[in-house]
Amino acid sequence: MSRAVDVLFERISVLSPDESGGAYALTDAYVAVRAGRIACVGLTRDHAAAAFDGAPHETYDGRDRILAPALANAHGHAAMTLMRNSADDLSLHDWLYNVIFPRETRLRAEDVRAGTRLALVEMVRSGTGAAADMYFFPDEVFEAFVEAGVRLNLCVDAKKKDAAGNPVLDAAELERFQRLARTAGRGLVVPSLLVHSVYLYPEPLYKEMADLAADLGAPVQVHVSETRREVRECQEKHGRTPPEFLRERGFFRTPTLAAHCVHLHGDDLRILAGPGITVAHNPQSNLKLGSGIADVHAMVRAGLRVALGTDGAASNNNLDLFRELRLAAFLAKGTTGEAATLGAPMALRMATVHGAAGMGFPDVGVLEAGHAADLLVLDCERASMTPLGDPMSAFVYSADASAVESVMVDGRWVMRKRELTTLDEERIRAEALSAAHHLVPALT
Amino acid sequence: MSRAVDVLFERISVLSPDESGGAYALTDAYVAVRAGRIACVGLTRDHAAAAFDGAPHETYDGRDRILAPALANAHGHAAMTLMRNSADDLSLHDWLYNVIFPRETRLRAEDVRAGTRLALVEMVRSGTGAAADMYFFPDEVFEAFVEAGVRLNLCVDAKKKDAAGNPVLDAAELERFQRLARTAGRGLVVPSLLVHSVYLYPEPLYKEMADLAADLGAPVQVHVSETRREVRECQEKHGRTPPEFLRERGFFRTPTLAAHCVHLHGDDLRILAGPGITVAHNPQSNLKLGSGIADVHAMVRAGLRVALGTDGAASNNNLDLFRELRLAAFLAKGTTGEAATLGAPMALRMATVHGAAGMGFPDVGVLEAGHAADLLVLDCERASMTPLGDPMSAFVYSADASAVESVMVDGRWVMRKRELTTLDEERIRAEALSAAHHLVPALT
Repeated sequence: MSRAVDVLFERISVLSPDESGGAYALTDAYVAVRAGRIACVGLTRDHAAAAFDGAPHETYDGRDRILAPALANAHGHAAMTLMRNSADDLSLHDWLYNVIFPRETRLRAEDVRAGTRLALVEMVRSGTGAAADMYFFPDEVFEAFVEAGVRLNLCVDAKKKDAAGNPVLDAAELERFQRLARTAGRGLVVPSLLVHSVYLYPEPLYKEMADLAADLGAPVQVHVSETRREVRECQEKHGRTPPEFLRERGFFRTPTLAAHCVHLHGDDLRILAGPGITVAHNPQSNLKLGSGIADVHAMVRAGLRVALGTDGAASNNNLDLFRELRLAAFLAKGTTGEAATLGAPMALRMATVHGAAGMGFPDVGVLEAGHAADLLVLDCERASMTPLGDPMSAFVYSADASAVESVMVDGRWVMRKRELTTLDEERIRAEALSAAHHLVPALT
Repeated sequence: MSRAVDVLFERISVLSPDESGGAYALTDAYVAVRAGRIACVGLTRDHAAAAFDGAPHETYDGRDRILAPALANAHGHAAMTLMRNSADDLSLHDWLYNVIFPRETRLRAEDVRAGTRLALVEMVRSGTGAAADMYFFPDEVFEAFVEAGVRLNLCVDAKKKDAAGNPVLDAAELERFQRLARTAGRGLVVPSLLVHSVYLYPEPLYKEMADLAADLGAPVQVHVSETRREVRECQEKHGRTPPEFLRERGFFRTPTLAAHCVHLHGDDLRILAGPGITVAHNPQSNLKLGSGIADVHAMVRAGLRVALGTDGAASNNNLDLFRELRLAAFLAKGTTGEAATLGAPMALRMATVHGAAGMGFPDVGVLEAGHAADLLVLDCERASMTPLGDPMSAFVYSADASAVESVMVDGRWVMRKRELTTLDEERIRAEALSAAHHLVPALT
């Protein structure tokens, strides 16, 4: 983990969500970062420089550059990078049962560490400063993120087996991670309760899980209404949609990341508009696995907080949030037949402040004085961003991950001018290749 | 324009459409390029090297690299790069009438040259070796492409005004470009007749245009069924869909690039499956302008040749075909609800050989001995392509434009190891900025 730096960004274009539900753009601006916070955003050098009280600080030439909040990936399975490009164009059932599950039975702690680190390199290079993660071996995920200096909403599986082999809940495991987050986590980690979905556990466990989350004040991560089949089976079994079922069992009393929400019906929009709930929209994964197209326009109109996720690299096959934010805007326009639907400012909000807030980082995602210094710098000196035009449009419609030149989290550089400061890319790629090799049953 | 080079690619992964409607992948392969053609694709160095008969040649280390045909952009308006990011999130009518048309009235020949060159930098950097172009000032477009060494299907407007101010056809203009293509074009340019759409010209002109194309053996470029409104108005006015109207007027006797085809009905699929017709699918533009989602799965099943286009950078806002080929596959899967729909091999075909053939370059887009040496090299040494997995999946689902390190057209490097050989990027960006500035009415 690198140390916090004080930086004055000079003559830079600034894009950011604001605190009133919109977004702003400034050109030729000055931004002071001091002691891990945004100290000043202004249009004159003198005003911004005054924030340092004469203390030494780095300057960053912002000409042909855009400064924006670091991106927040609200749903993913980082270590699935190890299964990238290994099984595409297969139906969901074939993919899960014949490729993914057999490999996951072979997963060791060291594989998850290697795959998570690989994901971290990819995420940082594409401008991501915070990610939600739902996978195995949470200790490894925790350490990899803290070591990298990237924020994390970490799923913890609180199930264990009793003497008869039945799943029961174990509050101690979740409490252990809550303690870890307060100490080793240095403010970067929020542990949450893993609730995979409405279809995976014995029915009595759902109420117990909801109560455990409420008792410990723990957020929840859960897959919700990803496929038509999930919704149909939930209705057949419980007479309720997945959001209705979860509410009825006592969920949504703590902050909840509800991933996917592709197929919503009846009262679902109203339920998911409740306080503390964030929908993690994964447009690429939903298309690629044939799940469908979530109606994000309806969600936004109904007041839901919609964030963006990449899902795992095995169903995407990339962790680049620029693809997701552009596609989210495109799909909303294409499916409503109206180019004005879901404009660039809302896409920016979804990719930044909505995700950060949904993960439990309420002071992240807005570049205004007093907020955390989580940010990225885009290099716009390239044909594909010439002329730059409206920087908000450029960010959402023209930019891609390769334009990201710097990323800061909590006032610390994690990438500066394309140099990673906390991750050894060459070694990480080599270790990931070795772990990926181990997972393939036929090869070992 | 650079000179043709002889090159031996060593230990490289090769992806290519084949001649039987599928695609193949080889790893650790050797490919010999000699005198502008693919001389050999094989699995041993000796066999491939024999193609040079002892003559000197360059070698290219292909480890961690993918060799594939250069991409073909089957629909675009290159110089609209000048209007990039200038008017987004607007309804189609506002966008056209309040932003685009006022700027286009100010276009000078030098602006089109500057904007086309800017597009060429962006296209080459993202792996494109051939493009169809429909815009103003075709002499400028012709020169910019030939100078860059990139293949072109060039729209020529054969209309002029008679003494009374009515549009009449002028065969001489199209014939002039046919002669130019044979001389200065050096095999890189195919002129085609501009037929903007079924709604822009006086009705009698359509039959005359179809006859002119047939008389001169000229291909046609035309926008077809892009919006619901276009189709509805054509049916109201002519009692026919746009494809039916065009066929009835005598089109489709020469090769035709039919752009968009978002809203097809009745007999349209059968008409567009006719010989010589290529549909240019523009998934990003169709979503962004709210036009809708073309049913590419139905087209492919009906035997249509579907290629890919970016449309202009004002409605996209980028000329990166990797985005289009991935999105084409994703949309087909998402809308059919089946992950197996439109697999990576078909996406590769659409982005390469279908476009090249549709533009009039029948020996381009297939890496087999005897075909033209139009190719690209992807650098896969990056976290986002680790592990590489199946190279076909990696190309379609993981790669983005920033992985393109080299592009060759007709045996000549246009980019080698990220160095452009025919385009002066810095000067081109400066000239484009100046031209873009000129187009904005309020600024000059």
